[in-house]
Order: sequence, then structure tokens, then C-alpha cells
Amino acid sequence: MRLLSFAILVLFATAPLSAGELSRTYLNSPLAAQHHLPFSSGVLVGNTLYIAGTTGVDPDTRGPVSATQEARLVMNRIEHVVRQAHMTMDDVVSIQVFCTNLANYDAFNNVYKTYFHGHFPARAFIGAANLLFGARYEVMGIAIRR
Amino acid sequence: MRLLSFAILVLFATAPLSAGELSRTYLNSPLAAQHHLPFSSGVLVGNTLYIAGTTGVDPDTRGPVSATQEARLVMNRIEHVVRQAHMTMDDVVSIQVFCTNLANYDAFNNVYKTYFHGHFPARAFIGAANLLFGARYEVMGIAIRR
Amino acid sequence: MRLLSFAILVLFATAPLSAGELSRTYLNSPLAAQHHLPFSSGVLVGNTLYIAGTTGVDPDTRGPVSATQEARLVMNRIEHVVRQAHMTMDDVVSIQVFCTNLANYDAFNNVYKTYFHGHFPARAFIGAANLLFGARYEVMGIAIRR
Repeated sequence: MRLLSFAILVLFATAPLSAGELSRTYLNSPLAAQHHLPFSSGVLVGNTLYIAGTTGVDPDTRGPVSATQEARLVMNRIEHVVRQAHMTMDDVVSIQVFCTNLANYDAFNNVYKTYFHGHFPARAFIGAANLLFGARYEVMGIAIRR
Repeated sequence: MRLLSFAILVLFATAPLSAGELSRTYLNSPLAAQHHLPFSSGVLVGNTLYIAGTTGVDPDTRGPVSATQEARLVMNRIEHVVRQAHMTMDDVVSIQVFCTNLANYDAFNNVYKTYFHGHFPARAFIGAANLLFGARYEVMGIAIRR
Repeated sequence: MRLLSFAILVLFATAPLSAGELSRTYLNSPLAAQHHLPFSSGVLVGNTLYIAGTTGVDPDTRGPVSATQEARLVMNRIEHVVRQAHMTMDDVVSIQVFCTNLANYDAFNNVYKTYFHGHFPARAFIGAANLLFGARYEVMGIAIRR
């Protein structure tokens, strides 16, 4: 339930644009707002979406899930931000995965692959020393609307 | 004094543009030039600024400062690059923070928040194994002029 | 020989564009395709190239090379992706280097410098906990065609 509410995003539109200016929309989750976390889940500028670093862990419960379940949670959240920007995962062009245990590489990939159809984004996969909330993965990226 | 000189940026404009080409400007600090460091502090292409990974440590003195002071130094330098590109911090759309000790998360955030008004950039916060010059934080990002 | 084949890229063009839409091209290596790796080596959208995280290690042989040789291999691969997108290294605007041992900073830089003429990209240099295939470096970046 908490996880669900975390995934519900609210769009804040910015002020009206002057001629030639790119639109700018901030995507935020109620949970992030509630915790006064100093970041947006995504920032959409024109057709380019900058997706925040996202984990598959609930910051309150931090309940244990498997490496596979956590991969699914983090990718679901990424997909949610992408959809709120009226895009699909196939619009994602670049991804960075930070991972605290490279032994989870295959578990992550097996989940990750299912989110794309046809071509994959460019991607980096980096071994992090640690991540907030004991997360196994933190994923960020860039999507560009077709 | 060294820290001050480090923060003074020089703009190098590129050659005249052909029609339709985006302008490209390299931002560099005299200290980086003096040490022949192989990076620019920022690269501005059209209205998009790519900000280099920036620390709050002086590469010469490496003098000890608190986690809070170091956060302020690194954010001051980020802001300086942003201003040299004739933008404000509210033009920043994406930030990555690499941090050698996640226990400094709150200390960093308390400083970080004060640099923005209204909405925050998308952000990732990653536990790094270590950083150059014994830095606690390395911050990089992207800004887009409104 | 494997390393060579790894560096040979194949371009897959996307479907014809509707008016005003940016072109999108996925760059892939035969080795990545053979191993069903879930990423593209690069994604070119209009004039902007998103370069995947790239190592200087062959995923099969993982044969030992020096820190200097590995730096050259990874930068050769980055350059190859850039050239396949019909750009040069001087079009690169942003680079991230993840490095498992900061003692290799100078070895990396001495090689890295030789790939650029005039100005350098903005760059971050981050100490990673570890990298896939035991790599010393993983390099990713963004290039924008002039």
C-alpha cells in the first residue's frame, strides 16, 4: 500500500512559456513530498525526461525482498515515471545501474530485459559501495519522446 | 585564496558557427589549467550545460573541513559553473551525488536544499568506494537554460 | 581477435521518421548481440549520442593487461562508437569514469588525454566498489555532433 502510494506521481506544471522556450514539468511522488526529499522523481524538458535515481526499497518499511523482486520494483517505478511523462520504456535511451553486489547481475538482467521490446538503451552497470535504505540497485536514466 | 582562485572560471568560446549549429563553450578553472587536468569544469552546448564532477576539496591543501562545510564548498562550485553559463541553480535538471559515507546524507541534504527554490532536479545519490583527493562528495549534473 | 570483433559495430536504423521527429539509431557490437547482453553500445538521437558504459576487458578471455593497456582498450572502444555515429572524440561533451583503484588515475589520464585535441569534455572520476568482468575502468559519455 505504501509502495503503491510511493508510485503514484503528481505532475506540477511550470509557468506559461515564452516563445521558443521548452516546457518543463516536475514529476513527484507523494511519499517523496511527505518526507521532504530534495529531488524530483523526474524532470521533463521538452521531449527529454531526466529520471531520478530510483530504488526498489520502501524507505519506511525497508522490508526484505529477493534480488529479483527488488529488480522488478525498481523497474516498475522507472516505468511509472516514464509513463507519467507520456512515454514508453522504448523511449528510454540511456540507463545507469548502480548495484551493491555484482552477483545480482543476472537476476537484474532477467527482469530488466522484459521492460523493453526490440532495442535496448545504452547502459552502464556499476558496482556501488552501498546505497541508501540498503537498496541492492539504484537506477537512473534519460528518455526522449519519439 | 586557492579555493577562491579555483572557483574563478574562464570562458573559452569556440570558432564561429555555421548555420543551424549549436554554440559550444568550454568552462575552465585556472587551477585545473595550471595542473593540466584533462577535463573542463563545464561544457555548454546550445542551452544545455554538462557540469563536470566537482568536489569540495582543494587539490593542493586538502585541508580538513566538516561534512557540512565540504557540502557547501562543492555546491558553491557547482553554482559557480552554472552562473558562468548565465543560468541559475533552478535551471539544473539532473544531479548525481557520489558520496563515500552515506552517514553524511542528511548533512549534505541540509546544505543542498538551500541552493534551490521551488522544484528540485532529478537526483541520484550513490555510495562510492572512494573519491579523488579524499573527497566526501563528488557532484555532477546537467542544466538547461529556460 | 575476439577483442577486434567486439569493437566492430553494426548500425540498426529505426523506422522512417514522421515530420519533426528526431532520428534514432542503435549501435551494437556482434559480441554483445551474441551474448544477448541487454544494452546497446550507443544510442544516437538526432545529433546526440548516448554512449554505454564500456570496459577494456574482453568478457570471454578476461586476459590480464596493464592499467595503461586497459585504458587504451576502453578508450579505443569509446572512440569506435563515436566514429560509428559519424563523430570524432572532440564531439564528446561529457564523460564519467568509474575506476576500481584510484591509484590508476594517472595511468588512465595519460592515455585519456591523447584522445582529445584542444578542449576536454566535462568529466567525473569516481571510485567504484567493483566492475563487471574485473574491469579497472568503466567509461560512459555523451557526444553531440557539431
